[in-house]
Amino acid sequence: MRPAPRKIAVMGAGSWGTTFAKVLADAGAESGTEVMVWARRNEVAIEINTRHTNTRYLRETMLPANITSSSDTAEVLAAADIVVLAVPAQSLREQLLGFKDSLEPTAVLMSLMKGLERGTDLRMSEVIAEVTNLPEERIAVLSGPNLAMEIARKQPTASVVACRELETASWIAAMCSTDYFRPYTNTDVIGVEIGGIAKNVIALAVGICDGMGMGDNTKSSIITRGLAETTRLALALGGSYETLSGLAGLGDLVATCSSSLSRNNTAGRLLGQGLYLDEVNDRMSQTAEGIKSGRAVLDLATRHNVEVPITEAVVMVLEGTLSVENMGARLLGRRLKSEGELN
Amino acid sequence: MRPAPRKIAVMGAGSWGTTFAKVLADAGAESGTEVMVWARRNEVAIEINTRHTNTRYLRETMLPANITSSSDTAEVLAAADIVVLAVPAQSLREQLLGFKDSLEPTAVLMSLMKGLERGTDLRMSEVIAEVTNLPEERIAVLSGPNLAMEIARKQPTASVVACRELETASWIAAMCSTDYFRPYTNTDVIGVEIGGIAKNVIALAVGICDGMGMGDNTKSSIITRGLAETTRLALALGGSYETLSGLAGLGDLVATCSSSLSRNNTAGRLLGQGLYLDEVNDRMSQTAEGIKSGRAVLDLATRHNVEVPITEAVVMVLEGTLSVENMGARLLGRRLKSEGELN
Repeated sequence: MRPAPRKIAVMGAGSWGTTFAKVLADAGAESGTEVMVWARRNEVAIEINTRHTNTRYLRETMLPANITSSSDTAEVLAAADIVVLAVPAQSLREQLLGFKDSLEPTAVLMSLMKGLERGTDLRMSEVIAEVTNLPEERIAVLSGPNLAMEIARKQPTASVVACRELETASWIAAMCSTDYFRPYTNTDVIGVEIGGIAKNVIALAVGICDGMGMGDNTKSSIITRGLAETTRLALALGGSYETLSGLAGLGDLVATCSSSLSRNNTAGRLLGQGLYLDEVNDRMSQTAEGIKSGRAVLDLATRHNVEVPITEAVVMVLEGTLSVENMGARLLGRRLKSEGELN
Repeated sequence: MRPAPRKIAVMGAGSWGTTFAKVLADAGAESGTEVMVWARRNEVAIEINTRHTNTRYLRETMLPANITSSSDTAEVLAAADIVVLAVPAQSLREQLLGFKDSLEPTAVLMSLMKGLERGTDLRMSEVIAEVTNLPEERIAVLSGPNLAMEIARKQPTASVVACRELETASWIAAMCSTDYFRPYTNTDVIGVEIGGIAKNVIALAVGICDGMGMGDNTKSSIITRGLAETTRLALALGGSYETLSGLAGLGDLVATCSSSLSRNNTAGRLLGQGLYLDEVNDRMSQTAEGIKSGRAVLDLATRHNVEVPITEAVVMVLEGTLSVENMGARLLGRRLKSEGELN
């Protein structure tokens, strides 16, 4: 096993980036690992350095004293052995292009992001590889049933660190393991990423059903069939069945669909209550990722000849070509004989 | 396809038996199928016949006029082509022994029950086969994400009718298909039954975590790992992976764990809040099935060398050999490296 990193950079001071920095700082307190967070806005960096809080995203949560912050990417990246990427999915390429020359020559990059790049339909690890030319053993992803606010409160959470090279995954997992955060390793990067991406769209569908007043029987059927279509997509791309049945597939989907903390679930509920997409976006401080990634997921599935009826219906609702009432009929009204045909 | 049945008998007037009788009556209204419900207590039969309600279990829900009821098993079973069994799981053998001589010679029996017989660890379809000597093509089961109160309110619901002979399953599915209730067919009786049995125990575990104040991250992990151990058990008994990933496995588990209507979930929450089992049973009008079946599920798994750590922990809590605090540590505290080892 490699020695513990001297410094870990976390690029992005949103709720998940800041929370994961806290996990890293709690895990690395003994080994003396330095955790430095890049914040886009300087006032956030100052708040983290002086008050040890990030109130906009994590309210009153106190951050460990071994977390520092800066709005200067070069300062944050200097001497960092691990670089954690937690910027908005659609801005990743631009950000990476801006700071890739400041990366340490041996740095390992890890994505916390769940989304597909619009236009290219690339997964985050693929964008990282394309922009940085790093080999796959130096690109990792983290995903799982990981609602940030619960982790900030130290509620027991399991997660998955995936890298094509198991040694890298194990090294990173050791860096973020605490008594409340348990990372498991996996070498199926594709399956882990697809689970994290597609669940946002399925959560929108479940939220829509919720907003229309449907019950747990309906929502559970949508979750079941949603995981089936996500699994088909992952398999077509080279992912494994086991990954999608695990924490980064089923686990993340159930957490997102159950939680009132989930933006995708909330956005779906508003759509189900009859609001237009513009009104939903106006009401929410951040656009739900499923709204941004839905079309890209559908395009990816179509290109690989994978049927994703739930995703397709959600995209049609988002694009205004299907009403939520007709979406319900479309998803629930098909007369099929055997359960296998159901998907 | 066989002709529509002239008469369907529903043995049991609890919430699920009465609700399913309503589904059958709504589905059979056109073909003129008679639906007759056996109620243990004569006053319930009289209420159904005269007021078309069963207020104890279904509050103000109005039952269709083509449902009749009697407390005389011979009267209910006379001329019934399909006999739906909806009695408490632990009383099935005794009930069947009491009325099996009144069954029509060609009757098909279908179980709505989710439980294992204590002492023998037999599934309900196995108890039926043992007591009646019927061939497996005349024994069916129904399972899925089917919270009775939601179906009584006609909220869209999907379900699974399983029989070793597909023709029988299709015949029954046609008998209970309405615009709000969609039965799919499956020939994997073992998988469908195990999904319905084990989810009650997993729902207890999720309820315990809920009662202890744990969040959606934790609960989603327990659901994920709970489905994994249920799937292992089903596979060891001859069931299929697909069934457990479908409505009768994942779907039913998620519905039960999400719903505040679920008795198992409620019982778990009370245990998690620190109540003793006796106190939980005192507070609830009916004992949660997971409490009754937990030990049988564990025994069955042990006999087939299947590890079921969540079920084992729940049984220890129920039997007083593990505190809920230590259960949390036991389930979440294991340090394992790869996600495959997690199960």
